[in-house]
Amino acid sequence: MRWVRCERNGNVFFGVVHGTEVEEVTGSAFAAHQMTGKRHPLAAVKLLAPVIPPTFYAAGLNYVEHIKSQAAGEGQAPKIPEKPDIGYRAVNALIGTDEPVVIPRDAGQRVHYEAELVVVIGKKAKHLSEAEALSCVFGYTIGNDVSERDWQKIDRTLWRAKNTDTWKPMGPWIETDVNLDALKTMVRVNGKTTIEFPTNHMLFSIQQYISAMSRYVTLYPGDVIWMGTEGASPNLKAGDLCEIEITGIGTLRNRFVAES
Amino acid sequence: MRWVRCERNGNVFFGVVHGTEVEEVTGSAFAAHQMTGKRHPLAAVKLLAPVIPPTFYAAGLNYVEHIKSQAAGEGQAPKIPEKPDIGYRAVNALIGTDEPVVIPRDAGQRVHYEAELVVVIGKKAKHLSEAEALSCVFGYTIGNDVSERDWQKIDRTLWRAKNTDTWKPMGPWIETDVNLDALKTMVRVNGKTTIEFPTNHMLFSIQQYISAMSRYVTLYPGDVIWMGTEGASPNLKAGDLCEIEITGIGTLRNRFVAES
Repeated sequence: MRWVRCERNGNVFFGVVHGTEVEEVTGSAFAAHQMTGKRHPLAAVKLLAPVIPPTFYAAGLNYVEHIKSQAAGEGQAPKIPEKPDIGYRAVNALIGTDEPVVIPRDAGQRVHYEAELVVVIGKKAKHLSEAEALSCVFGYTIGNDVSERDWQKIDRTLWRAKNTDTWKPMGPWIETDVNLDALKTMVRVNGKTTIEFPTNHMLFSIQQYISAMSRYVTLYPGDVIWMGTEGASPNLKAGDLCEIEITGIGTLRNRFVAES
Repeated sequence: MRWVRCERNGNVFFGVVHGTEVEEVTGSAFAAHQMTGKRHPLAAVKLLAPVIPPTFYAAGLNYVEHIKSQAAGEGQAPKIPEKPDIGYRAVNALIGTDEPVVIPRDAGQRVHYEAELVVVIGKKAKHLSEAEALSCVFGYTIGNDVSERDWQKIDRTLWRAKNTDTWKPMGPWIETDVNLDALKTMVRVNGKTTIEFPTNHMLFSIQQYISAMSRYVTLYPGDVIWMGTEGASPNLKAGDLCEIEITGIGTLRNRFVAES
């Protein structure tokens, strides 16, 4: 099942995709809700980030080649994480598919994409074992953890390097039926493939992250966990179109534009 | 004016404090709302964290003696921040005044309080100058940025060191009328004063933080900014009662208990 959050004529609603149509749902995908039978052409609605999470988790470094390329970019030896320590991003930065990513005037040259699988939590969860971990998952979507590498290096935190407004595209929808081991992530910039990788080749699995996290923190419906990215990115500039496809989920598509 | 978020008989509502009573308000303190005239004894309601923020910002290192004592605790030279880089905390950890802070079984000895002034945002804001910065502020409350120093040292992020469930007490209410320069922060553990400091003696002011942040991120109604703490904390253990008073705002009071 594919869940969207969308807007039409100023109304924001959740919906379920049926082919080229969206069936409107009353209430929240993450709480009591009802199918309405009212359908809209998918092309007639504006897709929003499919959820605004209470807590926005991000694994950060979770694929080996990305860790190595990032370290090399800073002239440092790679430090491979020894355990699944989760990080955070911020909801101010969320946008949906087909919305523009705005590059501030004073950003440096190294504005990069990071193509990520996003886990969406559906049930309140604490103290889950790895075997139980996926029982709290609602579905999966795609995230672009847009990053500015100079700010990432010189700032004390990741705040503007990762959380500048519009820098967290997420979507296009939440897919509930996914075979994790079959997923492949592909990125295209201006139509040309820049990287492909098996989505689930993570340093620490979704199960390991959820189990470790839920020892100390309660996960809530609508929370998202961005699972990290593989490889490197070319420098992106205003005008570039970045598409992230994960097979079985869909394609997240955003154009980069200059701050006006 | 003092705004509370509270619960009585299973109903959660915002309210305004009049002496020893709370007047119930319909809607949100941060959006359309209406006074109802319906009053409850303050002693009859359970005070909750006064807001669940869309984004939970935290300055982290923002007072010189705290930075020095933290560095000394780790046997390192202090690094004084050169600019206001904001960090993040997570809403799973929020509790109100008089709720227990639960220490997990495997926490180390160095569980510490951090007494913080909390800025609550009331208006959507972007690109504010320092002179304009306070125009987006709704009011002020108190936060206890409970921290476990071993996890803070060994983990790659601050996730469990700072965001373990119940480790972000906030309250008791939001005070809208505050003279920042007159505020004094006092901490008592089991009734004995452990530290006092002038609240506004920050490395970077509220105005500097808001202006710097709003260059890149939009602030939204209900967002909170925890402004950092001064000095050090004794090691806290199960049974300890920690009270943080900021003159002109109130007292945030939480007992530490062991995980059962």
